[in-house]
Amino acid sequence: MALSSNYKSILDNAIKAIHERTFFAQYPEHPKAYGEDGASKGLEIFSAYLNNEFKELQQENPSAWVSEEVSPFTQEKLEIQYPAFDVEKTVIRSARAMNAWKNVSVDDRAEVLIDSLERIAKRFNEIAFATMHTTGQAFMMSFQASGPHANDRALESLAMAYEELTRFPQNVTWDKPMGKFNVVLEKQFKAIPKGVGLVIGCSTFPIWNSVPGMYASLMTGNAVIVKPHPKAVLPIAIVVAEIQKALSEKGLDPLTCQLAVDASDKLITKELCEHPLVKLIDYTGGSTFGSYVEGLKDKVVFTEKAGVNSVIIDSVADINAVVQNLSFAVSLYSGQMCTAPQNFFIPATGIKNGDAHMTYEEVVAAFKEGIAGIANNPKMAAGTYGAVQNELTLKRVNSLRKMDGVVLLDSQNVAHADFPNARSISPIVLELDSKDFGIYENELFGPIVLIIKTKDTDESIQLAKDMTQKHGAITCAAYSTDANTSNKIIEEMESVYAPVSLNLVGMIWVNQHAAFSDFHVTGGNPAGNASFTNPEYVCKRFVWVGHRRIA
Amino acid sequence: MALSSNYKSILDNAIKAIHERTFFAQYPEHPKAYGEDGASKGLEIFSAYLNNEFKELQQENPSAWVSEEVSPFTQEKLEIQYPAFDVEKTVIRSARAMNAWKNVSVDDRAEVLIDSLERIAKRFNEIAFATMHTTGQAFMMSFQASGPHANDRALESLAMAYEELTRFPQNVTWDKPMGKFNVVLEKQFKAIPKGVGLVIGCSTFPIWNSVPGMYASLMTGNAVIVKPHPKAVLPIAIVVAEIQKALSEKGLDPLTCQLAVDASDKLITKELCEHPLVKLIDYTGGSTFGSYVEGLKDKVVFTEKAGVNSVIIDSVADINAVVQNLSFAVSLYSGQMCTAPQNFFIPATGIKNGDAHMTYEEVVAAFKEGIAGIANNPKMAAGTYGAVQNELTLKRVNSLRKMDGVVLLDSQNVAHADFPNARSISPIVLELDSKDFGIYENELFGPIVLIIKTKDTDESIQLAKDMTQKHGAITCAAYSTDANTSNKIIEEMESVYAPVSLNLVGMIWVNQHAAFSDFHVTGGNPAGNASFTNPEYVCKRFVWVGHRRIA
Repeated sequence: MALSSNYKSILDNAIKAIHERTFFAQYPEHPKAYGEDGASKGLEIFSAYLNNEFKELQQENPSAWVSEEVSPFTQEKLEIQYPAFDVEKTVIRSARAMNAWKNVSVDDRAEVLIDSLERIAKRFNEIAFATMHTTGQAFMMSFQASGPHANDRALESLAMAYEELTRFPQNVTWDKPMGKFNVVLEKQFKAIPKGVGLVIGCSTFPIWNSVPGMYASLMTGNAVIVKPHPKAVLPIAIVVAEIQKALSEKGLDPLTCQLAVDASDKLITKELCEHPLVKLIDYTGGSTFGSYVEGLKDKVVFTEKAGVNSVIIDSVADINAVVQNLSFAVSLYSGQMCTAPQNFFIPATGIKNGDAHMTYEEVVAAFKEGIAGIANNPKMAAGTYGAVQNELTLKRVNSLRKMDGVVLLDSQNVAHADFPNARSISPIVLELDSKDFGIYENELFGPIVLIIKTKDTDESIQLAKDMTQKHGAITCAAYSTDANTSNKIIEEMESVYAPVSLNLVGMIWVNQHAAFSDFHVTGGNPAGNASFTNPEYVCKRFVWVGHRRIA
Repeated sequence: MALSSNYKSILDNAIKAIHERTFFAQYPEHPKAYGEDGASKGLEIFSAYLNNEFKELQQENPSAWVSEEVSPFTQEKLEIQYPAFDVEKTVIRSARAMNAWKNVSVDDRAEVLIDSLERIAKRFNEIAFATMHTTGQAFMMSFQASGPHANDRALESLAMAYEELTRFPQNVTWDKPMGKFNVVLEKQFKAIPKGVGLVIGCSTFPIWNSVPGMYASLMTGNAVIVKPHPKAVLPIAIVVAEIQKALSEKGLDPLTCQLAVDASDKLITKELCEHPLVKLIDYTGGSTFGSYVEGLKDKVVFTEKAGVNSVIIDSVADINAVVQNLSFAVSLYSGQMCTAPQNFFIPATGIKNGDAHMTYEEVVAAFKEGIAGIANNPKMAAGTYGAVQNELTLKRVNSLRKMDGVVLLDSQNVAHADFPNARSISPIVLELDSKDFGIYENELFGPIVLIIKTKDTDESIQLAKDMTQKHGAITCAAYSTDANTSNKIIEEMESVYAPVSLNLVGMIWVNQHAAFSDFHVTGGNPAGNASFTNPEYVCKRFVWVGHRRIA
């Protein structure tokens, strides 16, 4: 085996892109790049999975078969049966496979892993349907987030790891002049992997949030166990199956990457986390479990937890463009993105709109209208919202009506032409006072927008900063036409390690973090302790050991 | 300010050296490179410090003056008075200074810090005497370890940080083709420092072990508070004073780097560690306090704690060369180096010496003779051993006589021609059985050698590995003329993240870790969680934050 020229050029481009951080995508985001009839074929393949055992994994002797997925669009069970395994057996298999994998050269590991990405790319359409019917994402988002965008993030992570692993020479002669003679040592530098890696997936982005950790751990020589959310298995099961095929084809142990499916009534996550051979944990999900993971001893942990994302409205060039942009940002996938804005801080004294003054009430009315505009546009609503993944999200929306705030815009059921049973609702918009931090300091996951009346922009900044420091934030959208205020927002928000997206309008939204350019999560506030893909994200997965011997 | 061409070339060479990992030294290790009469002048300057207040620090309004240093060579108090400050005041000063320092450009930070190293280099001779009379190191080791070797490690750390900070562009235009139009964002990537850094020094290597963390934290934009061991203040006080001068000269706040001296009866280390503004901690010292530091919440911690370093004797080309090398390695600075070997694992069945067989007893006798040879050579002994820093080390040596092992060679007082009162002893050599792990699993800091009889080399490897995994190790010396056995030793030891020095003979010892080449401590076993200077050592000290705005 060796790194083929084709894959080497993919890798070289990715490494270049990481450094340049300009726009780069290895995998085009348009479905048509993957075949004209890709979607219909993908639907066919997806449909064939339903009501069947998932047999593509090269993991033998399951102890049970489990099935728990329900489509948020049809609200029917998918009835796909996945093999489940004893935790001890899974971990031992992983450790055994790692004994061989860690000795596979860095170039050969890259060859196998890039090959797996190329294989996955051929299945983007069926993965899109699998994602749609587990997460509730609309088709286009399912395609992009679980397909090209996820593959790009995996490649980014692999490329960053490759660069770190090849940063120092493998062998070097150290030749020290001592006056009359030299001391000469042969040194060997080895990147020794940390151990079995566990990747814990979430229900809303089962691939996008999992593959960076998987590819970072695998590339650095660790074996990986992927523990998906019991209600979002199929997308990542296809990915794991393709990684296993790429491994087997090169004569390597497919158990180097395993899927560990469990059931909600018998979760195995803690048992996996606490297994002494598990040394690395990548986690995406709620803060309570995330803090448990971060508190584990002798584990290297990478988390993305909850956060409270702010919008600071100070002054705008054109309120219509801003309203349009933010209304879409809060509506997209019903606010079920970790990057979605939640808290809109608007000064009671109003804002500048171009050269004109706009009262607080006018600004709030504009947002209400903008958000309602999508809800009341049947063509747009269903495709923008998708469906709600988790029943609890509906309950959360309902519970907000009983809160102290004023319901500016109520959530309503949204009809999907193709899916009469879709669990789909429009956003609820609640108006609060800055004193109501007991409400807005929580991440209210889902289609929930809070408009918070502040004294002035300084208070808006202070509250956004406080929320970030105490509860974490992954994004901050800010609008100001004043250079000093913009700088102040940036300085204050970066002091709590939140990136600011300033004055976004048009076809780009604060929710979007692009591979090869945007670091996703900074690792500096409670929203998570890791950032993909910065150097720390990969170099904590192995240890440099330097041996020496007399030349 | 800007990065001057002279300093830029120092930096460029250092960055190149980090990548090549061949021999490189910015600061020559020979005292004569720093002036023919450097030593006598250095002694004069050092002597002038005695019985005086240390007035070089630019830290005003001390709350007290403290003095606790005692020369291990004269056993007399140095009576140098250092200013002590209220912890709260020190931390607040640090945080305030950091507000400016974090906004100093990366190039300007490098300029100031390299300038400080150049200033320190002019004072290597007085630093050598300061080190000698606080640590007990002989003059030549004091000169090298606290002078050129320390400066090289500081420069290495600074250079690694510089590379990480400049790894990504500061500003970039992200231009994404969307079909009929492009989305264009201006992105700004900023490395935001973590916060006030605390560097906790040790009594045996007050500079060498402290400067890597200091320069890594400072270079990445953090302010630093240096908390020295109360009995080893002067060497690092001179270093801090020179950093402060380099800062002031460029109009920057000297409080960016402060010295926080305390007294043994009123230690301030925990108060500093637990201060909410202290975000980074570099620690060198014992395991108990090290584990406390590692357990602190919301701090990024870099530790070097205790470890149990092994020697595995399997087979040798020439026993005399091996005995000579290892006898010196255990004798150098009386085993008070974190890299010094302690546990010699020798198979009961004997070893191969060239083509001949050597019984276990013969091997043990050879080591006993080799170690005694230094003790019995008055010219060599004093200069090799130096003096014992801590009274407790003498007690430890004494207590070993009561242990279960056989005292093969007893420790004896060593006369120093120039210092009749020197606290100096030769090593004690104890023979143990492999069952006596209750004794040899401890780091027995000081001139203590344990010879452990094992069944065979496999058991030697197993025990060395177990000790490393459970108690940590910074080095492992191994001797084998067999390729398979050598590979096995390397594989097993690297699996617990200990570097192996194989078959070292001649003028190179396992104790020596060279800047720009050897990673010191791997971070992978209980001997410490950090390695200077690998990429992780610097990139955990700041957070990448990327802002975006519409172009």
